Amino acid sequence: MRISLIGSGNVATHLGAALKNAGHHIAQVYSPNLQNAALLAYHVKAEPVDNIDQISPQADIFIIAAKDDAIPGIAGSLARHQVLTVHTSGATDMNTLQQYVENCGVLYPLQTFSKTREVDFRQVPLCLEASSYEVYLIIRELAQTVSNNIYQVDSQQRRVLHLAAVFACNFPNLLYNMAQQILAGNGLDFNIVRPLILETAQKVQELLPSQAQTGPAIRRDEQTMAAHLALLAQQPGLQELYKILSQEIIKMDIGQRQAD
Amino acid sequence: MRISLIGSGNVATHLGAALKNAGHHIAQVYSPNLQNAALLAYHVKAEPVDNIDQISPQADIFIIAAKDDAIPGIAGSLARHQVLTVHTSGATDMNTLQQYVENCGVLYPLQTFSKTREVDFRQVPLCLEASSYEVYLIIRELAQTVSNNIYQVDSQQRRVLHLAAVFACNFPNLLYNMAQQILAGNGLDFNIVRPLILETAQKVQELLPSQAQTGPAIRRDEQTMAAHLALLAQQPGLQELYKILSQEIIKMDIGQRQAD
Repeated sequence: MRISLIGSGNVATHLGAALKNAGHHIAQVYSPNLQNAALLAYHVKAEPVDNIDQISPQADIFIIAAKDDAIPGIAGSLARHQVLTVHTSGATDMNTLQQYVENCGVLYPLQTFSKTREVDFRQVPLCLEASSYEVYLIIRELAQTVSNNIYQVDSQQRRVLHLAAVFACNFPNLLYNMAQQILAGNGLDFNIVRPLILETAQKVQELLPSQAQTGPAIRRDEQTMAAHLALLAQQPGLQELYKILSQEIIKMDIGQRQAD
Repeated sequence: MRISLIGSGNVATHLGAALKNAGHHIAQVYSPNLQNAALLAYHVKAEPVDNIDQISPQADIFIIAAKDDAIPGIAGSLARHQVLTVHTSGATDMNTLQQYVENCGVLYPLQTFSKTREVDFRQVPLCLEASSYEVYLIIRELAQTVSNNIYQVDSQQRRVLHLAAVFACNFPNLLYNMAQQILAGNGLDFNIVRPLILETAQKVQELLPSQAQTGPAIRRDEQTMAAHLALLAQQPGLQELYKILSQEIIKMDIGQRQAD
């Protein structure tokens, strides 16, 4: 397909590379920052543009991979072309596009992307929504060229997915950071816990998290929890969080036992 | 070495298997539950015993892999043999053993173990402490036969490590469970977020967590955070936690910027 990419951030970069590798033609890359547009355009052999009015209608699909609050403005600017348009946002309704363009949809990659890190895009779950069945078939065909994990998800479900992703990714990463701070404050290297972090994530690739829970809270090990709270005496924020999360583990366990 | 294992839980099971595979002789396995002792003893070709007084002094080392609060009692019962004794606990001081036996130490595997899941033990960080340099050399030699990740860590550092492990493993798993509950409550499959969970952990194998943070809080995306909080209106516990953790991400980011 002939694709124009509206955006040059993490999602645009990884999706653009995957599409290019799958043999699609990336026509143009737009970013309000020409340098950013040029960098991605160079990688996917496209034309960089920094004015949305330079986006040509000579494309089969526009992919808007921009900040959520920029999507309506971009969609409005591109409306006159009436080219099939999708966005890649987890938190934005398809309606936001439908106001401007008849044939539209969503292609939401449920993954955490950093520009400096390679991702095996074939494993990335792509959550699709479309304004019609015909459009759905086109978007699905495109998606299948880059990923083996395709899901059909409506706007309400996608909002829930996006929320779940915060709990599955953003918050765990915050907790990794807290672990790193605790270690650094005592002259210990973050390397010591890296295998533990990886194994914790690997376990739930097969098990459900409720089956994989370990630690002092699930064992009701009051002595260890008290010792941990004492170690956090100088960090009241972490101490309070330790209490809340331990209580939640105990609640989860009780819920689990009642369900069994 | 000729080893007796005091305990038959997750740590005893994985450590016992790794030691057996490394060519050591497991003499006896003790558990107050004979069936549990017998199961592990069968796998490591040892004699199962359910009475601590049946533990023979014919061993180079006793490895106590038992619940934290059981360690002093076990150490007391074995004291008359004065065999080199280590425990595997992250939260128990070496002192607990030293009261009873002169040559002692700690061999703390910093990993999350489930009986049903294989772990590559060579990657498991082993945190060692010993009552003397001579004892340290013996424990280290033993540890090196099963793992490539050996650290010397004193009792105070081990307490901190154990605390950090709660933030790196137990709490993230709780958040995975919350994600799973949120998805299940909306008819969505946990499989959709499994690749995200894995990638989040894989990212920090190279990066620091502060470099890997993504999501609405770090972007100060107030609109998305408000939408997420609205979705959690019926679950005040999760809603409150979402607020607290998002605030912590923002604080982390401010701290990071000031440090840069």
